[in-house]
This record gives sequence, C-alpha cells and structure tokens, in this order.
Amino acid sequence: MNVGIIGSGQLGWMTIIEGRKLPNNYYILDESAGPAARVADGYFAVGSYRDFVERCDVITYEFEHVNEQALMHAYRSGKLLPGMKPIELKRERILEKEYLRDEGFPVADFYVAKDAAEARRLATRFESAVIKSSRGGYDGKGQFYTDRSNAEKLEIGMKGKFVVEERIDFEAEASIIASRSPDGTFRAHRPSFNLNKKGMLFYNMAPYRDFGMRKIASSLLERLGYVGVMGIEFFIRDGKPMINEIAPRVHNTGHHTLHGSSISQFEQHLRAITGLPVPEPELFVPSGVLNIIGVHMDREMEEKILSVPGTALYWYGKEGIRRRRKVGHVNVMAKTTGSLRKRMEELTETVYAGRPEDYL
Amino acid sequence: MNVGIIGSGQLGWMTIIEGRKLPNNYYILDESAGPAARVADGYFAVGSYRDFVERCDVITYEFEHVNEQALMHAYRSGKLLPGMKPIELKRERILEKEYLRDEGFPVADFYVAKDAAEARRLATRFESAVIKSSRGGYDGKGQFYTDRSNAEKLEIGMKGKFVVEERIDFEAEASIIASRSPDGTFRAHRPSFNLNKKGMLFYNMAPYRDFGMRKIASSLLERLGYVGVMGIEFFIRDGKPMINEIAPRVHNTGHHTLHGSSISQFEQHLRAITGLPVPEPELFVPSGVLNIIGVHMDREMEEKILSVPGTALYWYGKEGIRRRRKVGHVNVMAKTTGSLRKRMEELTETVYAGRPEDYL
Repeated sequence: MNVGIIGSGQLGWMTIIEGRKLPNNYYILDESAGPAARVADGYFAVGSYRDFVERCDVITYEFEHVNEQALMHAYRSGKLLPGMKPIELKRERILEKEYLRDEGFPVADFYVAKDAAEARRLATRFESAVIKSSRGGYDGKGQFYTDRSNAEKLEIGMKGKFVVEERIDFEAEASIIASRSPDGTFRAHRPSFNLNKKGMLFYNMAPYRDFGMRKIASSLLERLGYVGVMGIEFFIRDGKPMINEIAPRVHNTGHHTLHGSSISQFEQHLRAITGLPVPEPELFVPSGVLNIIGVHMDREMEEKILSVPGTALYWYGKEGIRRRRKVGHVNVMAKTTGSLRKRMEELTETVYAGRPEDYL
Repeated sequence: MNVGIIGSGQLGWMTIIEGRKLPNNYYILDESAGPAARVADGYFAVGSYRDFVERCDVITYEFEHVNEQALMHAYRSGKLLPGMKPIELKRERILEKEYLRDEGFPVADFYVAKDAAEARRLATRFESAVIKSSRGGYDGKGQFYTDRSNAEKLEIGMKGKFVVEERIDFEAEASIIASRSPDGTFRAHRPSFNLNKKGMLFYNMAPYRDFGMRKIASSLLERLGYVGVMGIEFFIRDGKPMINEIAPRVHNTGHHTLHGSSISQFEQHLRAITGLPVPEPELFVPSGVLNIIGVHMDREMEEKILSVPGTALYWYGKEGIRRRRKVGHVNVMAKTTGSLRKRMEELTETVYAGRPEDYL
C-alpha cells in the first residue's frame, strides 16, 4: 500500500522506520523536508498536494498545523484517516473543550473568551486559572497561568480567542495511547505516568494505574468514529481522570512502546489505518521516555546515555539546538518499575546535569 | 558517522532500519540493489567500491560471498570490521573447521578431502557423515548426508574441496548472538533453541539453556580480536555444546532481539563497530523467529499472521517466490516460554498449512 503522511517531523520519521517491516511505501507531504522526508520513499512539497493524494491509498497526519488546502483535498479524496473532525478539534481548543464537555467526558471547567481582555476577566471566576489560546498552542506555547488576584493585570501578548480553564490541582498527569480500527476494534496500551515541566513532557513511565482512562478512551474513539491511534492526556484528581487534551495521532508519551511492547504505537497506527489486525498490546517490561530538550548532543553525551543498560537513543537529526526545542529522546526499559524510576533519574542527571530548568 | 555495509540483503536492510535512530548515515555496496539499498542513504554499484570506501568511516558486511576486490580494498583502508580473518574462515569451511579445532574449540571430528572421490572414501570412517563443500555453502546447499554403507555410492554433483564431518547425533541445535567491542568488552544475548529443517532455520526461540555456549563465544571473539556481532551455531550433545558454524555478522537466529530485548543484535553490531557502549543485553520476554520460506504472501496471509498477538511481520520485499527462498520472517513474543511455543506452533500451522516440507 502507498501510505501518505502529512507532516515530516519526528513522529512521521518514527512511523516510517517502524513501518518499514510492512509491505508499504511511504510518502511525505510538508512545507519543508524534515526528518521523515529523509527516510520516506518520496517527498512532495506542499504545492504538489494533488499528486501526493493521487499517489497514496491512505493518508494520515503527524502534526496538526499543516496546510489547510492539502488537508481538505486529502479529506475529499476519501483517503484521510483519522479524518477531519479530530484535527479540527485539535486545532481549535474551544471546539475540543466544547466537544468533550458536550459529549459528557470529564474536563476541567472552562469559559470561552473572545479576546485577551475577556480572558482576564473570566479568569477571576477561578481561584487559579489557565488561559490558553484557542489556536496554535502546543508544548506550553500560548498558555498563561494566573491566580484570581493577579488575573486582571496578566500580560497576554496574543490575539485571538481563548479558553479560560480552572487550573486543576492534580495528583498526577497521565496518558493513554489507544486505537480504533475500521471495524470498530478498540485497543489500548497500558497508561503512562507523565511528568511535564514548563508545559513540555519531560519524562513518562509505563505501566501506570488506569483510573478509568481506558474506558474514556474507548468511548471517545467510538463517538468520533475514529480510525488510527490517538494519544489522550489526563489529569488525575481525587483518583479520577479528567481529559486535559487529545492528540489525533501517535503521541510523545507512547515512544517507549517501540521497546518492550508487543506492538509499537507506530505500527499500531499503520495497521489500524490500513485495516490490518491490531491485537491487544502487551507491555512486557516497564518502560518510559526521557525527552532531550535544548541539549547539545555530542559524542560524549551519546556514550554516557548509551552506557546505561536498557536505553535506546532517538536522535531526530534536526538542525540547530535551542532552549525548549526537542531534539531527541531516550527510550528506557528496566525489569521493575522501581529500577525504571532509578534509571530515569540517573539519565536525567546525565542529560541535564541536574538542571533541567536551564534547558526548558 | 558514515557506515558502509557490503551486501544489500535483508540483514543489511534490518541493520539500517534499526540504525536509523543513531546519528549515522548508511551506504550500501553490492552487485545489485537488494532490500537494504532501498532504505540506505546511498547505493554504490560494486564497480565504484573505491568511492564507497572513501565515503565511509567504518565498513562492515552482511553477507560472506561478496566481491573480493571491494572487500580487500575496504580492508586495506583500515575501516573494515570485523576484519578479513572472520570472513575468510566463513568462506572456506576447511579453514573454519581447522581454526576452531586448532584453537581448542569443540567441533565434530572431520577430515579434509581434496575432491568428491576422496570425500566419499573418508565418509566411510564415520558411522554417519556429512560431506560439506568447503566453499559457497549456506542454507543447506552443498551438504550431503550419508551413512557408512552408502558412502561410496553417494552422488556429489560438485567440484572442489570438502569437509567430511562426523554427523552429530544431537539433542538440540542452539545458537548465541555475541559481540565484542574495540575495548574488548564482550556481550551476549540469551541463547536460542533452533529448529532447522532441510538445512534451513525454520524457527528459533529464546531463552534457552546456556550449556557453556557463552563462555565459548567469549573465548572465540577474544581469540579473533573480533569487533562486532557474531552468530555462533551449536549442536548440543550429551549436554555439551559443539560449534557447528560461525557467522561473522548479525544472524538469522537473532532477529527476535528486535522485540522484547533491551538491545537488538543490529543496534548491538552498529554500536560495537562505531565504538559506542554496549551494555549487557537483557531479554525481557520469551521471543523467537518463524521464517517464511517459499510462501506466497498475500493480504489474507498477512492478516492471519498479524491477528496472532505478539507478532511482527518482516517482509523483505524480494522479487519472486520459489521453494527454499526465505522471503520474510515473523518475530513472536509471549509472556511465558510455554505460550511462546504454542504461538509458534499456531503460526507454523497458519503459514505452512501443516506442510512445511512442501515449501522447503
């Protein structure tokens, strides 16, 4: 089959590497040729989206903020999976929140603000609030935290609409990687515990307690008629999960499934969108991901990371290092959750020299 | 680093796919462009071997029967790992057997015959014998089994020298995948139990008992000053291992290390030859390989295989199917060795419809 991927970042890159074992060809469409383009069977510049759509039997995306015309053309061809609805929800936070609330899924209380001034006013309705721009936000961009007393004075250097959310005083953040096949089969990996720092995933570890996340994921994918892999992030408060956000694609809290799992999220997604069977994923060993953000990788660092047993280094080959830029990750495995935590801490020390805040 | 691979078959293909996560480029040299060439950063036809050697920082091989000039040029450049000695042993069975015996490693008793007539005569010295052509034999090619009474009449349609070996009445066949790094560090995966049919690996499963194989592997790699991964096949007789043959490269009894192990044999080889750390491999879950030989793969077969939990299908994309031609394999994982065996039998039934002998 000819599989098209819109976007050429690291998610597409890993999807193609992992998809090599299947009898598919892979084609990339993007505005510039990122890592995925280098391992694809062909790269289409965004202007040639008609040729791209014609070449492919099925088309998916690895990034939400892609060319609208290309996406619509792919959608109209009937080849786009998981379709337009999920990407619309993802690109417009207001729609995402409203959809989830209206369908009865647990989310934090929120208001919709038409501009920054209204967002500041609405924020005072909560003890503590997060103001999130409705469009273009990811990795903590376009998010503003405030408490009631400071809300009116908050500096928001952005235009557009906002979601004003109650800031959840959570016990933990967690996520689940789930898929739905064309015949409705639902599958999910074991949930992971996620540690975010400054709005970016720092590390995650699986398995984690379910808290009801699997059931929510199953309902949501069914409700959306979704086909493919979705990553769903949760807050856990008082032992109950609330959806923080969804990602209609493979997810950065699922990279550890490349090791120690019976199927990776990447193969799971490819199997689902091409209609191949997806058996229930099994996690054979506690595993997790440490992100490498803003760190200059040299040979010495590479050697230090790889000398820790049970590690695999994924280096995305991006040009240029800067603060808050994710340039790679380390998959980490260990026989017990306790030794995984230890390895993760050891690696954090190695990669960030005990000062992650300097890089994020 | 620029890593060169001589040979473009499935071993090189998997090495490159698995090596994508490391910050290397991969270049292939071969007489024709097989599967590995399709995923490489560049392909060199065999005539351009000088350019190939110049382009690469380190050069390895994935197949023994490659162009001699190219190999020698790579060797003289000082970039060839694991070097010339192992490939010379592998290509000339007489040298392999003599080396192993002279160095004190356990092998079956054997004689060297200068032609087929002498081989027939020498075969009568054993109750049961295997006559193996010294050059060009793999996957059971150039091997002739006989007992004493029929030896003189044996049809050997081949010229050249032969090794005449005592046919070992073994309890089991097994193998170990081991590596040695430039600093002398030795690492090995857990051994696997191998089932061969008609001289070809049918399936294998790990972990298996060690029987002393690890110690032998360690001595052998040290003795050879070897750098990289070696696959060593053994007979187990009376609970003791005897070396059957060596393969100076990644090995088809190690493909399961792509799943459920802390490091695959492919990454292990790449790390060793580029001087990166190789921690001790951990096997997290019983796993094995079922080879797909001579089977026509269609969508229905693909679906059947992938509907078994804990399977990953590797389809090499070779043109043309014929009897005894290996066209892919299935990696199989299961939580216990018992359930692995069950899955393997289920898959054998699926792939070969209970009649493997029709395909081999």
